[in-house]
Amino acid sequence: MDEKINFCSACGAPVMMRVPAGDTLLRAVCDACGVIHYQNPKLVVGTLPVWEDRVLLCRRAIEPRYGMWTLPAGFMENDETLPQAALRETLEEACARVELDALYTVVSVPHVNQVHVIYRARLMDLGFAAGSETLEVRLFGEHEIPWDEISFRTIALSLRHFFADRQSGQWRCHTAELPPP
Amino acid sequence: MDEKINFCSACGAPVMMRVPAGDTLLRAVCDACGVIHYQNPKLVVGTLPVWEDRVLLCRRAIEPRYGMWTLPAGFMENDETLPQAALRETLEEACARVELDALYTVVSVPHVNQVHVIYRARLMDLGFAAGSETLEVRLFGEHEIPWDEISFRTIALSLRHFFADRQSGQWRCHTAELPPP
Repeated sequence: MDEKINFCSACGAPVMMRVPAGDTLLRAVCDACGVIHYQNPKLVVGTLPVWEDRVLLCRRAIEPRYGMWTLPAGFMENDETLPQAALRETLEEACARVELDALYTVVSVPHVNQVHVIYRARLMDLGFAAGSETLEVRLFGEHEIPWDEISFRTIALSLRHFFADRQSGQWRCHTAELPPP
Repeated sequence: MDEKINFCSACGAPVMMRVPAGDTLLRAVCDACGVIHYQNPKLVVGTLPVWEDRVLLCRRAIEPRYGMWTLPAGFMENDETLPQAALRETLEEACARVELDALYTVVSVPHVNQVHVIYRARLMDLGFAAGSETLEVRLFGEHEIPWDEISFRTIALSLRHFFADRQSGQWRCHTAELPPP
């Protein structure tokens, strides 16, 4: 998933893969300038937007999973908070303005070095539309969800928790760890 | 906080800082091989280990905040889950074996491009000890916490929530966003 490091991004010299002193893992080490280049998991952040009894889904206009339905979500950027990332992705992918509710699902996906974070959210109006990475945006009732066309396991898991918690009236933050598919 | 990217880690050519087509942010772009080098927030993951009515703290043997008290926590690595990262850091810093309880605090710290994640945890025995980045490990009752010597705001916030929730008996996941100090 992560790009292979061949050269030092600081000085341009070739790097060596080795375990630095005091460390336990292989790292890309630059012996020319001494920089150790760490690679760490990325956060993917989004929302589960709700309007009355329906939830908003986006149909993906990009790979992977082109044409499948997803919640608005994407990579968190530097200089932003989790809520800012969730709002930005919802606006970019679904042109949707939402008010965030609680942190809802936190899912580790180690085989792709990602952690997925989904907030529950309330749509503020019906002025949503497809963003540049989206083919179509629609609201779905519980019995209309296209379960066989959901893009990622984190999305299906978040939707299943949502409908179960709504039925029980017991809302809480859910965590999960996904093995390789 | 992030290292400056001067050269392409894939091919070694100098990079340009510019906004790629279809993007909205400045990125390090390699015009020689076409790779765009994204930089994203990192996850810092740890535990709040409990033994009876006391909590475990570690005194830092490294900068920043050398000599201050902290919860065992550190950067999440690729190929691991949040719970695995929390257990690993607790073992590395405090030589402590714990059973994880629920996800407890999730804190955005945008000025250092980090998200902090702390789990509540139960110490399995009293065989803890200082790891290589720790001067000392001790158990503290609520009225013994060295509040003026706590390393980071996320740690103080997690401890304050812990004592308040323990008093009320209402445990839940807490989120926060920290402005620059």
